[in-house]
Amino acid sequence: MNPVLIEVLRGSSVESRHAGALAVVDASGAVHTALGDVERPVFPRSAVKLLQALPLVASGAAEAFALTDAELALACASHSGEPEHVATAAGVLAKLGLTVDALECGTQWPSREPVLRGMVARGEIATPLHNNCSGKHGGFLCLGCLMARHAGTEPAAFVHGYVAADHPVMREVSAALSAATGVDVERAPRGTDGCSIPTFALPLRSLALAFARAGTGQGLSEGHARAARRLRQAVAAAPFMVGGTDRFDTRLMQALGERLFCKVGAEGVYCAALPELGLGVALKVDDGAVRAAEAAMAAVAAALLQREDDELLQGYSHLPLRNWRGTLVGALRPAEALTRALAARR
Amino acid sequence: MNPVLIEVLRGSSVESRHAGALAVVDASGAVHTALGDVERPVFPRSAVKLLQALPLVASGAAEAFALTDAELALACASHSGEPEHVATAAGVLAKLGLTVDALECGTQWPSREPVLRGMVARGEIATPLHNNCSGKHGGFLCLGCLMARHAGTEPAAFVHGYVAADHPVMREVSAALSAATGVDVERAPRGTDGCSIPTFALPLRSLALAFARAGTGQGLSEGHARAARRLRQAVAAAPFMVGGTDRFDTRLMQALGERLFCKVGAEGVYCAALPELGLGVALKVDDGAVRAAEAAMAAVAAALLQREDDELLQGYSHLPLRNWRGTLVGALRPAEALTRALAARR
Repeated sequence: MNPVLIEVLRGSSVESRHAGALAVVDASGAVHTALGDVERPVFPRSAVKLLQALPLVASGAAEAFALTDAELALACASHSGEPEHVATAAGVLAKLGLTVDALECGTQWPSREPVLRGMVARGEIATPLHNNCSGKHGGFLCLGCLMARHAGTEPAAFVHGYVAADHPVMREVSAALSAATGVDVERAPRGTDGCSIPTFALPLRSLALAFARAGTGQGLSEGHARAARRLRQAVAAAPFMVGGTDRFDTRLMQALGERLFCKVGAEGVYCAALPELGLGVALKVDDGAVRAAEAAMAAVAAALLQREDDELLQGYSHLPLRNWRGTLVGALRPAEALTRALAARR
Repeated sequence: MNPVLIEVLRGSSVESRHAGALAVVDASGAVHTALGDVERPVFPRSAVKLLQALPLVASGAAEAFALTDAELALACASHSGEPEHVATAAGVLAKLGLTVDALECGTQWPSREPVLRGMVARGEIATPLHNNCSGKHGGFLCLGCLMARHAGTEPAAFVHGYVAADHPVMREVSAALSAATGVDVERAPRGTDGCSIPTFALPLRSLALAFARAGTGQGLSEGHARAARRLRQAVAAAPFMVGGTDRFDTRLMQALGERLFCKVGAEGVYCAALPELGLGVALKVDDGAVRAAEAAMAAVAAALLQREDDELLQGYSHLPLRNWRGTLVGALRPAEALTRALAARR
């Protein structure tokens, strides 16, 4: 069993507990902090979208289709389906000469409730463009269209079925994951992600290493190193695209710019790169709770960046809980094992 | 640390794990099954609404205001805010001569999404009647109005502030909890619930005992025993009221009638009474996940009632997980510790 990372208080009592594991690693693979089982494979889900977008830039596809900062940031995003996200995703498809039918991520209503309610009130319905992964899939299509151009094939036919593990696009994406993590993902346990692409279970230590590499360029090919820097800069320039209104990733990168790249994944995963410190971070909350993953990442970022008094980070690591009348009834807080592990490295 | 109760599979790999504790107890207090720490106090939240409704019936208030089965079932409910729930809650207030302003549970949008979308499309807004606890609060108001009648006081003035721990209504509710669980709740850790009433942290063993008592009448006062039977019968007669469309509690009690009373609570709590077997059940998922609490309760019910092949129960204990395109990507399943503990009692 992994140690408790985050406690949920009601009044002064601990009501719920979130166990998990955390790895902080430098680009040489040296472990800075390890808490819990960092060798157990976990599905990183959407937390590795930046790594999955490396071929988009390294291949020259992003340049060939003149992708903007906003479009590249959206390729690394789990966005909330707000109008700006949808318009940006639609813009990428337009550049490729494709329609929304090319997206194989499935239809999802916007996660941001006021946006969803606005759509319902106007009688609109969701499309694959509203799917939180539409930007990533736009990136896959962009890569596929460049491949089609090189192969002299009709793009729409070439990209069809791009979510399959053995499609040339997905093989390139998987290869980038293998290169960055140092794990041959073809030999890793495989599952199907929410957006229908394969997801591979990898040790947290390897995921943290990949983000240390993505933050520094060390240990990556020249093309991937340049692509990682370009993507980090794009997200820092357009942080709204990576999440949306009031989203932790967006708010954190709005505040910290290129000092931190972080990305949430489903089922309680978080990955981050801290380029100045040369560190990569990967954590997984055992039970899959996002609230705990965000709180843990806030605590980790505060400790590593020595911003323990940062109001934004404190607001997430000690998230206040209110009831239906708005009364303060409790809060999250980092558990002792987490604070001790982080303090040990000061 | 408690053992893992429920595993979440993606492909054939365990992606997430939900630890927790389980107590199955008979009305004499003898432990039938105990898994994990059943002495650690947990906030039972909405899982004890049936116990909180005992004074409503035992006082004669339910009879004085001629509450129907549907209204009594709603008093034990965490409903989805569907039109039938809202109309029934409004009907109780009308019987009392009170308006929606008397409800102190706060405003909550219906948890059932098609209902919420319909309201938004029609430009309607949520009220405290839509709050999942509106029926329970209607019951509190009913009790308060009878108290006011006995005291010769104006009801609206008497019931004002009924959610406070020291209000006569809430003192009666807390006394019923103490009597059923055998724990003096005034000495228990206290928090504020989502609907603003106090919630007390109690050992799972004591909560299971309370439900064994509520299912059998043994160990309760004559008035509370009769009230418990009346409430169980009301819920069995109107199971839609206790939850709503596609809700686990509703579907299970639609299928099993008076053989099982079960009730979910926030933060991963579940309580149940199995009158035929003379058993009470209480479980808490450490991390607060409802998906795991439902799956665990389904596994417990299947084992105790010897309905391992029941499709409905299997559907929850082994809940299939699908992605945005509807592809089957994984499932929940009871973990070995849980299946072993349940099998040991066959």
